[in-house]
Amino acid sequence: MTAQAYVALSPETMADRLGALPVLVDRVGPPQSWQVREVGDGNLNLVFIVKGSAGQAIVKQALPYVRLVGESWPLPLKRSFFEYNALIRQAARDPGSVPDVWHFDEAQAIVVMEFLTPHVILRHALVEGRQVSGLGERLGKFCARTLFRGSDLSMKPAERKADLAMFAGNVELCDITENLVFSDPYFDAEMNRHTPGLEGIVARLRADLSLKVAAQHLKMAFTSRAETMLHGDLHTGSVMVTDTETKVIDPEFATYGPIGFDVGMLLANFLMAHLSQPGHEKGPGDRAGQQDWLLSVVTTIWENFVTEFSHLWRTERRGILYQASLYENQGHGLASEQALNDLLGQIWRDTLGFCGVEMHRRILGLAHNADFERIADEGRRAACEARALAMGRQLMLGAGVIPSITTVTDMARRMDKENHL
Amino acid sequence: MTAQAYVALSPETMADRLGALPVLVDRVGPPQSWQVREVGDGNLNLVFIVKGSAGQAIVKQALPYVRLVGESWPLPLKRSFFEYNALIRQAARDPGSVPDVWHFDEAQAIVVMEFLTPHVILRHALVEGRQVSGLGERLGKFCARTLFRGSDLSMKPAERKADLAMFAGNVELCDITENLVFSDPYFDAEMNRHTPGLEGIVARLRADLSLKVAAQHLKMAFTSRAETMLHGDLHTGSVMVTDTETKVIDPEFATYGPIGFDVGMLLANFLMAHLSQPGHEKGPGDRAGQQDWLLSVVTTIWENFVTEFSHLWRTERRGILYQASLYENQGHGLASEQALNDLLGQIWRDTLGFCGVEMHRRILGLAHNADFERIADEGRRAACEARALAMGRQLMLGAGVIPSITTVTDMARRMDKENHL
Repeated sequence: MTAQAYVALSPETMADRLGALPVLVDRVGPPQSWQVREVGDGNLNLVFIVKGSAGQAIVKQALPYVRLVGESWPLPLKRSFFEYNALIRQAARDPGSVPDVWHFDEAQAIVVMEFLTPHVILRHALVEGRQVSGLGERLGKFCARTLFRGSDLSMKPAERKADLAMFAGNVELCDITENLVFSDPYFDAEMNRHTPGLEGIVARLRADLSLKVAAQHLKMAFTSRAETMLHGDLHTGSVMVTDTETKVIDPEFATYGPIGFDVGMLLANFLMAHLSQPGHEKGPGDRAGQQDWLLSVVTTIWENFVTEFSHLWRTERRGILYQASLYENQGHGLASEQALNDLLGQIWRDTLGFCGVEMHRRILGLAHNADFERIADEGRRAACEARALAMGRQLMLGAGVIPSITTVTDMARRMDKENHL
Repeated sequence: MTAQAYVALSPETMADRLGALPVLVDRVGPPQSWQVREVGDGNLNLVFIVKGSAGQAIVKQALPYVRLVGESWPLPLKRSFFEYNALIRQAARDPGSVPDVWHFDEAQAIVVMEFLTPHVILRHALVEGRQVSGLGERLGKFCARTLFRGSDLSMKPAERKADLAMFAGNVELCDITENLVFSDPYFDAEMNRHTPGLEGIVARLRADLSLKVAAQHLKMAFTSRAETMLHGDLHTGSVMVTDTETKVIDPEFATYGPIGFDVGMLLANFLMAHLSQPGHEKGPGDRAGQQDWLLSVVTTIWENFVTEFSHLWRTERRGILYQASLYENQGHGLASEQALNDLLGQIWRDTLGFCGVEMHRRILGLAHNADFERIADEGRRAACEARALAMGRQLMLGAGVIPSITTVTDMARRMDKENHL
């Protein structure tokens, strides 16, 4: 099949197309038993659940265009190749953190993988007011392990450079990030949209020269600081959960970039979830507990990231940077701790900046998030979004001086009580 | 010939091997007229001058090992591919700055190029006390043009990412820089050597934890901050001059890295030339004029770099970073100037750091430089080198606070009068 020209799958053709695949017959059952549903609700791809007599599988196939927009916005199939390569690396770097990949067909842009059940998309769970035990720990460790182990702190230089070169081919998905995240929100770009009522704060943000400078510094960091393999799109829509389990999906935006990018984007989505909660209240204050929990997750993600990153630094620093031969082996273990502190400081500042940008682009750009979008009342939605916009600015411009994650969660609590329209 | 297995050239085989090459017959003359000399004095390659009835050419061929060390240190032939690709990019980005390339044979690792005459290696000229008019202007502009035009400030993103990926293949030459520049000088590494008498200052540097941390931060910047295509080895031995002309050669270490790397390495070599001059005096103070001139070149390189980089920023910023659509086109030209100031500030801090590292590794590591090596008297040499070591430390640890190039040249003048043994 690999040699055949690309054809998009459909529920009707699934058994014919993939019915001979041993791994599917083994784990799902004979193709005669298959029931197939297309369930993709993302912006880009086809996603099928294949259910058979023996089990279920996910079949994800890239389309040669952006699903959200249509054939007028072509997008290369090779993103499937990058997703596959990111998934197998994440699985090796943080075992159990991502779905098991069972099969990859590069020409057909198909990844066949484990069907996660009864998992749901985290963002939907958060909108509904659900909580997930162990969430912050799991995500903080995922960031630390995948980001540490994809860098020159851990990898052999030739392997890291080969991966850097490979993922540099993910041009078109990086282009989406480069434009939609870092530039479009800060001027009146064609694909932007925002909730009516935000005009005042939008005008103030777009007139804020220091903010526009900070956004482009972050863009330059994203395009040039090839520190590690990023997930590249690590928001709460890229996480699937049960009440007790967490899996990360959809790394097709994977590229080499700054360690703080994934962490910042992730924290931003929890802060937006927090600030969106008043829009989902049925009665005054009935989301207060959920809001507290969301901020506790922000703290837990960051603290687990730092703890795990520091642990890996002290136990697995086998790359070419900050070598033990130079530090510990010379009796200079304190230099290693000094360097770790410096690096965590840099990652912290980056995290805050990327966090702020993500809060802006989800409200001002093309790709909005359900946390705000599902607030039916436009006035309430705008009020929540304005707080997120104001907070995003404060994070970006305060990145160099904000001392701790507590300052960030305190800021979120304060913003939640203020009017920024 | 391309399909044949690699064979090292010799003066005797040159006419047989390259005699049918039209560009050589045209520009050098028929092979019967050729006289061939091997003149390589670098650490890595074979270099031949081919002289014929019509002209001369340089034939440079990589050896499959490090010439300086021998076959025990293998080094891949593909460095010739990176040198060729860097040369044609530098020629396009700063016309006239590098020798014209006439022919490239990837399988034989041969670059045939213009013979520069009566040019000499700049380092030798500096040791002899010679001056070159226009040197600082030429080198400052070379840095600004090649570094700006190889970055996301100028290139199309897909082209920049393709070049990033290609040069990421230059693993083995990067490995030399990564080890010999950033790590070996800071501990008792096997290939190190230094002038007797330096033991005291060497011990102090290697016990300086903050310095060892700074060196590794710079190493991480070198390996991860893929801002632009670097020359990668831009010292005074990679520059050929007449009294009035300057050409840059030997970019086989080319890779994507931080803009400040080339600039810092270049300034370091002029500062070392300055600090080495007392070792070349025939009578007290007879190199004072040369010292003043060398520091004026340091100033001129930096000032021309800033002026030209700023000019390109204002007139050629057509990449995806700091777009005019976001700044000038919105009436926010001041944001563009603010961003330029920030970026130049970052480049300045990087430059100072890399400058300091280069001053250390040329005295403590494997590859020393003629500026100091040609000082026959070991005591005088050690005194000069100690000043450079002390200054290197001050630049690395002061990178965040040193306000101007004048502070740097003043520091060099002061160091020159002090005893740092």
